[in-house]
Amino acid sequence: MNSGIHDLASLRDALRDFVAARGWRVYHTPKNLAMALIVEAAELVEHFQWATAEESLAPSPEKLAEVPDEVADTLIYLVEMADVLNIDLIAAARDKIAKNAVKYPAPG
Amino acid sequence: MNSGIHDLASLRDALRDFVAARGWRVYHTPKNLAMALIVEAAELVEHFQWATAEESLAPSPEKLAEVPDEVADTLIYLVEMADVLNIDLIAAARDKIAKNAVKYPAPG
Amino acid sequence: MNSGIHDLASLRDALRDFVAARGWRVYHTPKNLAMALIVEAAELVEHFQWATAEESLAPSPEKLAEVPDEVADTLIYLVEMADVLNIDLIAAARDKIAKNAVKYPAPG
Amino acid sequence: MNSGIHDLASLRDALRDFVAARGWRVYHTPKNLAMALIVEAAELVEHFQWATAEESLAPSPEKLAEVPDEVADTLIYLVEMADVLNIDLIAAARDKIAKNAVKYPAPG
Repeated sequence: MNSGIHDLASLRDALRDFVAARGWRVYHTPKNLAMALIVEAAELVEHFQWATAEESLAPSPEKLAEVPDEVADTLIYLVEMADVLNIDLIAAARDKIAKNAVKYPAPG
Repeated sequence: MNSGIHDLASLRDALRDFVAARGWRVYHTPKNLAMALIVEAAELVEHFQWATAEESLAPSPEKLAEVPDEVADTLIYLVEMADVLNIDLIAAARDKIAKNAVKYPAPG
Repeated sequence: MNSGIHDLASLRDALRDFVAARGWRVYHTPKNLAMALIVEAAELVEHFQWATAEESLAPSPEKLAEVPDEVADTLIYLVEMADVLNIDLIAAARDKIAKNAVKYPAPG
Repeated sequence: MNSGIHDLASLRDALRDFVAARGWRVYHTPKNLAMALIVEAAELVEHFQWATAEESLAPSPEKLAEVPDEVADTLIYLVEMADVLNIDLIAAARDKIAKNAVKYPAPG
């Protein structure tokens, strides 16, 4: 199944199958997914909480081995959240960057 | 520039340009990006904090108009975090789902 | 009413009155209070997300004026959470420090 | 040492001693304490992320055994944050409740 995951759309489809096969749909409300998402984001924060800026740029091999899993968990819940709310993630990011470009114009 | 954003790779490239054009690279350490990411995740949580499960599944038009921006901000910082740490987001998600499938086998 | 708030017990009592007077008890479940708590904690994080360690030790006057409100909001939801779950905050902290002292013994 | 912890002031003093004895002062900047605080708040969120409102009001004995530690950790970092920023937690809460009373007047 996973070998077919190569972009956000196929990731979303794989997550739909994964959740449905385990009967988890009923738990994956936007409210609960927002909670799950922030819990995973906090696991990322935990990796860097006592690090200096420099240390955070050069994580230890142990951290480098663990961080991809936390990043993945955050992405997984974000993709599920967008799916249950019918949000196109890439279009939403494109629109937000356009707004940010107006709010924070580049110098020169 | 934004019209070229159509997947995670082009989103990453657009964010690199956006950050470089504003001289923000020095601030975008993994430590700071983890903080920015969780702040955006919390804005998502805020939308649903007093909602029942049912209400969270049928957000008001006002919420529906705001949630895509919060989802987008979360994705933006996640893509930047993965970029500075050289993590392939889709590969990381694929690996994590494989681990989850072992940890939580589907019934039957 | 507020003039009577001088410790955690009187703060808890004032919050009970405040919540009851507005008919909010039904919303203040542990689940929702955990969400409200982390949203307030994120507002604290937001104040420091781009700051260096040094800058965070010497906040601007604007920040110094805002941070007490975020700290207060976090405390308020924490006190409410402890109240609905019948947890004695000071006793819980005392027990946790005793565990931490075993886990992280002081050198020499 | 801990037997002397009976209110927020004695908790703050015990934490000062604990941190100083381990040479941790240098790590306990407002920036890092905000990160540590939100990580602990997320551990609270994690306990309730898949629970219904009703389940969160009647936690299992296992949860009831764990939640006080997470609540304590959140309080500990909040007290340390207030200490390094010279914020009087009770006064800040009193002021915030006064503002909230204006913002959300009690009905009739």
